[in-house]
Amino acid sequence: MEFFDLKPVEEARFLFLQACGNQPVSAETVPLADALGRITATNVICPTDLPPFPRTTVDGFAVRAADTFGASEGLPAYLRIMAEIAMGQAPTVALAPGEAQRISTGGALPPGADAVVMVEHTEALAADEIGILRPVSPGENVMQRGEDGKAGQVLLPAGHQVRAQELALLQSAGLLAVAVIRRPAVAIISTGDELVDPHSEPGPGQIRESNAAALTALVRRDGGVPAYLGIGVDREVEIRSRLKAGMAYDVILISGGSSVGTRDLTSQMISELGQPGILVHGVKLKPGKPTILAVADGKPVIGLPGHPVSAQVVYGLFVRPLLRQMQGLRAEEPFRPTVRARMTKNVASATGRTDCVRVRLLRQEGETWAEPVHGKSGLISTLVKADGLVTIPSPKEGVLTGEWVEVELLV
Amino acid sequence: MEFFDLKPVEEARFLFLQACGNQPVSAETVPLADALGRITATNVICPTDLPPFPRTTVDGFAVRAADTFGASEGLPAYLRIMAEIAMGQAPTVALAPGEAQRISTGGALPPGADAVVMVEHTEALAADEIGILRPVSPGENVMQRGEDGKAGQVLLPAGHQVRAQELALLQSAGLLAVAVIRRPAVAIISTGDELVDPHSEPGPGQIRESNAAALTALVRRDGGVPAYLGIGVDREVEIRSRLKAGMAYDVILISGGSSVGTRDLTSQMISELGQPGILVHGVKLKPGKPTILAVADGKPVIGLPGHPVSAQVVYGLFVRPLLRQMQGLRAEEPFRPTVRARMTKNVASATGRTDCVRVRLLRQEGETWAEPVHGKSGLISTLVKADGLVTIPSPKEGVLTGEWVEVELLV
Repeated sequence: MEFFDLKPVEEARFLFLQACGNQPVSAETVPLADALGRITATNVICPTDLPPFPRTTVDGFAVRAADTFGASEGLPAYLRIMAEIAMGQAPTVALAPGEAQRISTGGALPPGADAVVMVEHTEALAADEIGILRPVSPGENVMQRGEDGKAGQVLLPAGHQVRAQELALLQSAGLLAVAVIRRPAVAIISTGDELVDPHSEPGPGQIRESNAAALTALVRRDGGVPAYLGIGVDREVEIRSRLKAGMAYDVILISGGSSVGTRDLTSQMISELGQPGILVHGVKLKPGKPTILAVADGKPVIGLPGHPVSAQVVYGLFVRPLLRQMQGLRAEEPFRPTVRARMTKNVASATGRTDCVRVRLLRQEGETWAEPVHGKSGLISTLVKADGLVTIPSPKEGVLTGEWVEVELLV
Repeated sequence: MEFFDLKPVEEARFLFLQACGNQPVSAETVPLADALGRITATNVICPTDLPPFPRTTVDGFAVRAADTFGASEGLPAYLRIMAEIAMGQAPTVALAPGEAQRISTGGALPPGADAVVMVEHTEALAADEIGILRPVSPGENVMQRGEDGKAGQVLLPAGHQVRAQELALLQSAGLLAVAVIRRPAVAIISTGDELVDPHSEPGPGQIRESNAAALTALVRRDGGVPAYLGIGVDREVEIRSRLKAGMAYDVILISGGSSVGTRDLTSQMISELGQPGILVHGVKLKPGKPTILAVADGKPVIGLPGHPVSAQVVYGLFVRPLLRQMQGLRAEEPFRPTVRARMTKNVASATGRTDCVRVRLLRQEGETWAEPVHGKSGLISTLVKADGLVTIPSPKEGVLTGEWVEVELLV
C-alpha cells in the first residue's frame, strides 16, 4: 500500500523552488541595530569618501617618499620636523621637500606628504631633526582617501548579507539605516489527534506537542518570523481553518498528520487551498519520506512529517532553501561549512534514496570520527545526542567504516 | 622601538583564560522561548517517562510478535481484528493471542501487544480478519515507554547548549522553563581622539566610530549582552571613567587607542584598574599585534587594536573563547566547521607568528578555492569582500598555491 509517487530529493526541491518563484518578499528599512543577518534589498551607495582624508596606518613621520629614496642605516636621510599632527584635527601646515611631520596612527596626512615612515625606522637626532633609516614608497603606510569606499560607488551590492563587518562599514559611512528584504512570515501548524498543548497535562494516549518549538527556532535562525497557529486535531474543520489563517503569511508549515487518516486529510486540505496545489507527495528520503511540497495561489505550503527527526531533516532540505530564496539569496549555500570526520561504522543506504544520518563527533588519536546515532526518527533524544548530520546522496549505496564524510553540525 | 614583549597566540590565550578562572557566570531560569543558544546550568531531570506509553511508529496492526513468527506471503499468519485504537485515547481493549488491533502512527499500544505490523505487510481478508505477510520481532515499530527519556534520569546534562531539538525535548517533557547560565554582560569602550559618534558629521581629521557596531554583533552572537559605553577620547579622565563604569559588567572590551599615546594611556589605565593587571601586552599575530589581555580584580579586560580587521581577528582568538568559558563551555570549540579550499596564491608568514588571512571563496572546475583579500587591516571593506579567514599557525612559514586550507567563514 505504497501510495506515494516518491520523487528524488534534488528533483523535488527543484520543482518546488521553481514553482515558488524567485521573487524575494518586499523590502523595508531598518536601523543598523536590527540589520544583522538581513539581506540588502538594493545597492547601498557610499555617500562620501571613506576615509574622508588620507590617514596613516602607523605611528611615525609623514614625509615625501622621494626624500627617503636610498636611505639606509649607514646613510640615513635627514629631515626637519616641522610639526606634530594632532589626532582628530586637520593638519595645519603643508609639508615641503626635506621636511617631516610627527603623526600618530589614524592621523590625517598633511598636504604635500605622500607616505609615512614608521617610528621604528627612524632615529631621533634633535628635537627638530630625524634620521630616516629605510626608504618608503609613495602611499606606503597610508590609507588613501576613498580606499575603503568611494562616494557614489556601490558600498554593498543588493542581495548581500549583513555581518558584523557590514555593520561597521555602514556605520563608518554614517548610514544608520539600511533597506533590507523583509523577513518572510512563516505560519506553523501542528496536527495530530494525540497532541495537547505543552501547558496541559496529557491524558491517556496523549502527548505534548513539541515540533513547533523546534520549527520556531529554525525559522528564526534562517531569517523568518515564525507564527504558531496551534494544533489542528485530525478534524477537517480544524485543519482547514488553520490553513486558511496561514494564507495570511508568506509560508505555511504544517507538521504531523503522520497517521494515514490525518495525512490524507491534510493533503486533501492543502489541495483545496489554491493552485497549482501539491507538486510533490513523498520524497526518496530517510527519514522524511511523507513530505508534501505544494504551492497554493503563489503561497509555498510544506507538509512536514510528524516524527521530530524527520521534520528537522525535511526542514533543512526544503524549508531553509526556500527561506533563503525568498530573501534574495541563492537557495543553496554556495559554501557550506562542515566538520570532516571518518565514519566509525558502515551505514547502508538504498540507491536512489537520500539518507540523513545522525552522528556524534569523537576525537580519537588525533582524528575526528563520526559515530552514527541509531534510533527511531520519532525519538527527539537521538537528535539531542547528535552533533550533526551526514548526508548520503542518492547515488551512493552507503558509507564505509573509516570513510571520510562531511558532517553538517546541527545548530 | 619594539616596546612589546610579544607572546605567541596559544601561550597568550592560555595565560589569559587561566587567569580569568573557569567559574561560569551565575544561572537564571528562562522560559523556553528565550532558551535557544543558552547553556544549561544544571542537569535537567526528566519529570516523566517520554513517551508516557508505548507508541507505534507506523500505521498498521498492534499484535503479539509471537503470533507472527514464520509468517510469509505464501503462508500468512491469520489474526482476528478486535478493535481500532483511536488516536489520543487510551486503548480500551486488551489484546489476546491470535488477535490484532488496527492502529495509526503515534497511537498507544493496547495491553498485551508488543509489536506493530506495517499495513504494507498485511492483506485484508475480511472486515474482522487480517493476513500477516512478514513476521515482526517484539518491540518492532514501537517507541517504548520512556525510550525518549526516563522519569528521574538526566534529560540534558549541565553545560549542554540548547538547540532546536533540545527545545522540542524539553517541551515534550512539559519543562517550559530551564535553568541556564546567565549571559555575560560585556562593556564595549572605543577610544581615539579622531573618533566621533556615528550620528555626528565628522569634522576635518575625524572619522565615525565603527568598531563598536561590529563588536556588539559578535558579542551577541556568542551569547553575551553587549553594552556600549561610548568613546573615551584620548584623555586620561575619559578613558578612566569609562573603564571604571565597565567594572560593573562581566567583561570589558576597549578598542582603539592604536596611536602610541592612547595605547600607553590605555595600558596604564588598565594596569591601575585592579590586580593582577596586564598579563599580555602584544601577541605574535598578524593582524592584531597590539593586543592587551588583562584581569583586574577578577574582571577580564581586553584591549583590542583599533584597526577593524585586527579587532575582529583578536575578538575571534581571545574574546569568543572567553565568552564560551564564562558560559560553561570549553573555551575552544571541540569541532569547528570549516570550508575546505585550495589557496589561489602563496601567502608567506613568519615562523612563530600566527597569521589570519582574509579570503574570498571561489568555485573553479568543481573545486573550491580561497583567494587572499589583500589590503591594510584598517580597511573594513576588505572584511566585507572576504568570506572567511585562513589561519596560518605559528610554526608554519606560509601556505603555497594549491595547498588545501580550512576556511572559517565570517558570519
